[in-house]
Amino acid sequence: MDPVGIGGDPLEELKSFLRFPSISTQPEHAPDLASCAEWLWEKLTAIGLTAAIHSTPGSPVVLASSPHDPAKRTVLIYGHYDVQPPEPLAGWTTPPFEPRIENGRIHARGAADNKGQILAHILGVSETLREKGALPVNIIFLIEGEEEIGSPNLEAFLREHREELACDLVAISDTAMGPGNKAALTYALRGIAAMELLVRGPARDLHSGLFGGAVANPATVVARLVASLHDTDGRVLIPGFYDAVRPLEPWERAAAADLEKAAGGDDAIKELAGVIELSGEKGFTTIERIGARPTAEVNGIGGGYQGEGTKTVLPKEAFAKLTFRLVADQNPAVILAAAEEYLRAQTPPGILLEITTGHSGAAYQSDPNSTDGLAARKALKEAFGTEPLLLRDGGSIPILATLKEILGVDSYLLGLANPDCRIHSPNENMLIENFLGGIRMNKILLEELGKAS
Amino acid sequence: MDPVGIGGDPLEELKSFLRFPSISTQPEHAPDLASCAEWLWEKLTAIGLTAAIHSTPGSPVVLASSPHDPAKRTVLIYGHYDVQPPEPLAGWTTPPFEPRIENGRIHARGAADNKGQILAHILGVSETLREKGALPVNIIFLIEGEEEIGSPNLEAFLREHREELACDLVAISDTAMGPGNKAALTYALRGIAAMELLVRGPARDLHSGLFGGAVANPATVVARLVASLHDTDGRVLIPGFYDAVRPLEPWERAAAADLEKAAGGDDAIKELAGVIELSGEKGFTTIERIGARPTAEVNGIGGGYQGEGTKTVLPKEAFAKLTFRLVADQNPAVILAAAEEYLRAQTPPGILLEITTGHSGAAYQSDPNSTDGLAARKALKEAFGTEPLLLRDGGSIPILATLKEILGVDSYLLGLANPDCRIHSPNENMLIENFLGGIRMNKILLEELGKAS
Repeated sequence: MDPVGIGGDPLEELKSFLRFPSISTQPEHAPDLASCAEWLWEKLTAIGLTAAIHSTPGSPVVLASSPHDPAKRTVLIYGHYDVQPPEPLAGWTTPPFEPRIENGRIHARGAADNKGQILAHILGVSETLREKGALPVNIIFLIEGEEEIGSPNLEAFLREHREELACDLVAISDTAMGPGNKAALTYALRGIAAMELLVRGPARDLHSGLFGGAVANPATVVARLVASLHDTDGRVLIPGFYDAVRPLEPWERAAAADLEKAAGGDDAIKELAGVIELSGEKGFTTIERIGARPTAEVNGIGGGYQGEGTKTVLPKEAFAKLTFRLVADQNPAVILAAAEEYLRAQTPPGILLEITTGHSGAAYQSDPNSTDGLAARKALKEAFGTEPLLLRDGGSIPILATLKEILGVDSYLLGLANPDCRIHSPNENMLIENFLGGIRMNKILLEELGKAS
Repeated sequence: MDPVGIGGDPLEELKSFLRFPSISTQPEHAPDLASCAEWLWEKLTAIGLTAAIHSTPGSPVVLASSPHDPAKRTVLIYGHYDVQPPEPLAGWTTPPFEPRIENGRIHARGAADNKGQILAHILGVSETLREKGALPVNIIFLIEGEEEIGSPNLEAFLREHREELACDLVAISDTAMGPGNKAALTYALRGIAAMELLVRGPARDLHSGLFGGAVANPATVVARLVASLHDTDGRVLIPGFYDAVRPLEPWERAAAADLEKAAGGDDAIKELAGVIELSGEKGFTTIERIGARPTAEVNGIGGGYQGEGTKTVLPKEAFAKLTFRLVADQNPAVILAAAEEYLRAQTPPGILLEITTGHSGAAYQSDPNSTDGLAARKALKEAFGTEPLLLRDGGSIPILATLKEILGVDSYLLGLANPDCRIHSPNENMLIENFLGGIRMNKILLEELGKAS
């Protein structure tokens, strides 16, 4: 039995894909990213597509396409083969790059984000080709290796390959299903803007007794800068931060309320997050705060003695890694500039503040009631058996705004990850039924999109 | 040539002592502390004293004494053989436990704090015994291995050995010389009270996009708690923090002003600290802020992603390691309780704040104009050639208050460390002339104290 036609069991295929530690933020893993791209090239070629590995200044991009039939519409399916770092390693039940199947889930870094989801599309195309010999649309796979670091080289790649990538729409599975693992179409994602602060004081670590009280402590200063980002109600205090925020339409607030109800309310979200209380900006429900409101988060903070016990040191420097999550129509560059100005104005004498801005991308929204939006909803409904919910996602796929700008088309987000998939955390996992349902969904989606021509 | 009578060159003796990585805060170094204590026992025995190693629940205490002559006064010399951790290792020119002599200095972790200083006393006693066959006073060496972690077992040891340790005064070299490496008697030291905050939020690290805005971020909370410790003028905001602070006498402010002038003013302190500006509590000079005012310092802060690049995580926890430096007559327990109450009151819903209090000890002051104070000043003057300055030290030796309480005697602090010795920092060092001068000073000191009977 060989249901996918490229070597057997879909789960064995997924396990092979998950064994690559393709961590894009850690330079020492560049060879693993290259090997993972080659593995994809082999799969895509084996199922009957014309595939190529394109080198970039960073990780390679894998492209694959069916023979172009001008009578058919063209669907570009985007995904990524890079993953987040697995740290903290102590949190994993089994090693992050040794996939483990248990209770209907496959556990590994990248299981849900994004290897399981993009592979479902590849296997769906494979099955259709095997069963029918041809596809109802022209297909292009665009699978990059730098999504987790903000796709620094993808924009240039898109511009350079603009004609080859011409399409009618983009389909992406890189988001989650709705509450209760119900099918969902995501119509909005937050943008992101990253910034690292390095607060430098003394030329070296000092004795906190001999110098404490005489010089500014960089750990104190970084804490004061971070603390200055919010008021006690969780509202961001950077001047102008909320100026461009697109207000929620009444139908969106109603949809968010329905969703919150379907999700089991705040209690269910508490349990999912593993917290004893929820928290955040006043005046908005939890679902609204996550999907429709911008935030300023500390992803990492550090400075001074990190070991066991006490070391009475006044550290020479301290850092904070920040990311802002943005909504339409905030401009990441404007937000980063406002944050920098605000933080610099507070930096005390004797302290050097070095600011490095990281990856950024604007928020994205598409219309779930367009023809292609309705086709996507139909594919989800038929594959998973329920009318898909309409979601705003708190995460970011910065490339969506770029795809719109360069290719001039909309992206539709058909998320396959289970809501408790623990992406970016230890014990990331994907429900096997979602993975297999994703294969079915791809086949129906291409059929429906083909009809819409 | 064998000037010290216990095997030759004093510098070779010091190098042997410095090779032990006797780091008391790191449990894996317990065997190195034991070996270092044995080395001391051998030295003290070799010079003609009766020595013993006393085990404690932590590192052993080394005791040694001359035959007790009831006609003579008894001087207890206190020191410690444990050292601070050497981290960050990258800051060291050569490995911290491989002593290196360069430009008249010996470099190693512990060179100044406290191995070079206590060994100078041992070698001074050795020379006197060799030259005169007897000492002008009864001598007791009390050398512990837990000073850098707050001497958790010394108080019980002192109580248990109270009779054996009966003495007329305590002499300690565990502080620094004055500006320009001029001789100095230290008459006040700050106390210390340590506290670690562990801020716990979600059960695991979360995706900062999928949950950011919905839950309190422990890294933000720890930053807000740390930021709440000071106002923008550097004054500590914990209610009652300054209530018990003993005000400076007019003569002390004058002495501090003289000292600041002798030190070359703030410019010299800036250079010593390696900062571009000084900073701290308004209304006090730099010298006053270091020696006579209490502080709240962050020794370490951490949480979330610590690696290269970006990881969009909302961390499950974050920590801060704090120490308060206290002055007479602040009570460490009262300060810790006030800090805990203040910080707990600010902890937002959804966050669990775990507070661990660490080592603590009250500030100490003695009288530089007492008979023994004047003897100590004479020994310093004759050994180093200048009238000793009178200093307040910003560091802490918590055991001084305990010695006073249990043995009922005053401690006199004859610091031998050069002011640029970099204790607790990479490239710690001691001027060889200070080490050798300390040997001379010990001989004169015992002579002068013998006369005072």
